Amino acid sequence: MKLTSLSEITYLVEDELKQFNELFKKSLKSKAGLVDLVARYILRQKGKKIRPVLVLLSSKISGGINERSYRGATLVELLHTATLVHDDVVDNAEKRRGFKSINAVFKNKVAVLMGDYLLARGLMLAVDGNDFDFLRVITNTVKRMSEGELVQINKTRKLDNDEETYFRIISDKTASLLSTCCEIGARASTKDENKINAIKEFGENLGMAFQIRDDILDYVGTTKLFGKPLGGDIKEKKLTLPLIHALKNSGNGESKKILSAIKSGGNKLDIDYIVDFVKRHNGIAYAENVSKKFAEQAINNLSIFEDTEIKSGLQSIVNFVVERKN
Amino acid sequence: MKLTSLSEITYLVEDELKQFNELFKKSLKSKAGLVDLVARYILRQKGKKIRPVLVLLSSKISGGINERSYRGATLVELLHTATLVHDDVVDNAEKRRGFKSINAVFKNKVAVLMGDYLLARGLMLAVDGNDFDFLRVITNTVKRMSEGELVQINKTRKLDNDEETYFRIISDKTASLLSTCCEIGARASTKDENKINAIKEFGENLGMAFQIRDDILDYVGTTKLFGKPLGGDIKEKKLTLPLIHALKNSGNGESKKILSAIKSGGNKLDIDYIVDFVKRHNGIAYAENVSKKFAEQAINNLSIFEDTEIKSGLQSIVNFVVERKN
Repeated sequence: MKLTSLSEITYLVEDELKQFNELFKKSLKSKAGLVDLVARYILRQKGKKIRPVLVLLSSKISGGINERSYRGATLVELLHTATLVHDDVVDNAEKRRGFKSINAVFKNKVAVLMGDYLLARGLMLAVDGNDFDFLRVITNTVKRMSEGELVQINKTRKLDNDEETYFRIISDKTASLLSTCCEIGARASTKDENKINAIKEFGENLGMAFQIRDDILDYVGTTKLFGKPLGGDIKEKKLTLPLIHALKNSGNGESKKILSAIKSGGNKLDIDYIVDFVKRHNGIAYAENVSKKFAEQAINNLSIFEDTEIKSGLQSIVNFVVERKN
Repeated sequence: MKLTSLSEITYLVEDELKQFNELFKKSLKSKAGLVDLVARYILRQKGKKIRPVLVLLSSKISGGINERSYRGATLVELLHTATLVHDDVVDNAEKRRGFKSINAVFKNKVAVLMGDYLLARGLMLAVDGNDFDFLRVITNTVKRMSEGELVQINKTRKLDNDEETYFRIISDKTASLLSTCCEIGARASTKDENKINAIKEFGENLGMAFQIRDDILDYVGTTKLFGKPLGGDIKEKKLTLPLIHALKNSGNGESKKILSAIKSGGNKLDIDYIVDFVKRHNGIAYAENVSKKFAEQAINNLSIFEDTEIKSGLQSIVNFVVERKN
């Protein structure tokens, strides 16, 4: 099937998602007034729930959904929510999913503490379920995600990045969590390390393809309601794959000019000029090609599984991710 | 022995602290440039290391120090450092231990992520050592600490607090971590739940006595270099035990006047007037008495242990904590 939106895929685990939602809501409950208030604010926002869906699909394809799958799905969604809340502080963001961000409504203070609280609640769920294997995976992911963001900040401040570092950054900050979703889903339902590794690699490659596509859309996307504005990365001085490639491919003189334009920033920054530069030097086509290669690898990772509706569902996710227009 | 400073107690575990320091340093190492830079900045600051000392002493009194004691000590210090880094963002603090705070030097962005990173590194240490019992204890502590701070923020915003809530807040935000240090130290070296519970309760009562004394010092302390200025809690609208008691003890009219003075805040706020109000209504003496009762309970918790140098060391810590002048 061809997806026109990622949320279409949820029909494969519709009933299971309801059970996940119950557990997620329960995990956010607190007797402390402010905690409960912020938790209810978070619940109103309803994300795409793509991470729990990945856990559930990975669990289903590896042996079947069970109690541990639900805990795994809730754990990753709590961690994901925690990082979103912290990211909004990090980015001084005013909006999230069409709502005002937690930091905008309740101030940074509350957002930082609420992120810590959400992470702790997720970890406690794994502790209470004796899911030591989940804890092993998830703590490493928290480390990689924060480290990836910190490396990106450093590269941004220095306005210096290369392909190798770019791949490490997006692997740490984005692909690691998607890979973790798949791994946890599989670990919930099988001990077969071949299956676990295959689906874990699937998640990693899916994540890489997804993030590269995301970075391409910063140059060619259509701005939509609540979406990222075009050229946002350039304004934030983030050098992503299309630009990294174009800079490498262009003459030294032009590359210096582009970098100094980005460095100066502000109102003088001509986004159209930089987008045009990236296009002229093949940056978009190159990045699209790389994104598609990761997507192909993701599809290949699924080859050890039997052909089922779930498997085609996972393939549809990959195809959607590299073809999406916003 | 009578301590004149908490750091004197370290002589009881001097060699062990060196081994802890090595592991702590190693746990902060990262290949990512910015992470390593911030980590080295943190290492330069050298705190009092009271939490690792508590782990080591608790381990020693419960059976003896071993590899797990060092991991436990490092885990709690990493968690403590993570919360300090996040607290400085929460409080917009400019200074920490006489140095500029991480957020002041590297910005909020880096501080939030670095806190997450430090927490993850601590948890990974426990995961790598298969210390599932540590993870059970520590994840609950992270939850309690963030929840305690959030409840305090809420009470501060509403300028409304009572003794019961005050005790819950300080138990969650302060005593829980000291109790965790003691529990982890004991768990490292014994399976005897009587010993574990005794030393865990000791930590809880020590923490309560410590925080109440800290709150008293906001009214009667001597301002010292890098220390908290007098009346800081009042300016931040935090109602702590001395004031809560005085408000309850005074007539309704005067209590309303005091609360509205605190509410208005700013330059008009007459700290001396509020300190005098608290003293007139017995707030200091009452809080000192409560603090001493927790201290007595802490000493009692040690009764099941044989009389050793370590036990008198722990007693000295308690006595120092309730008698300290700053």
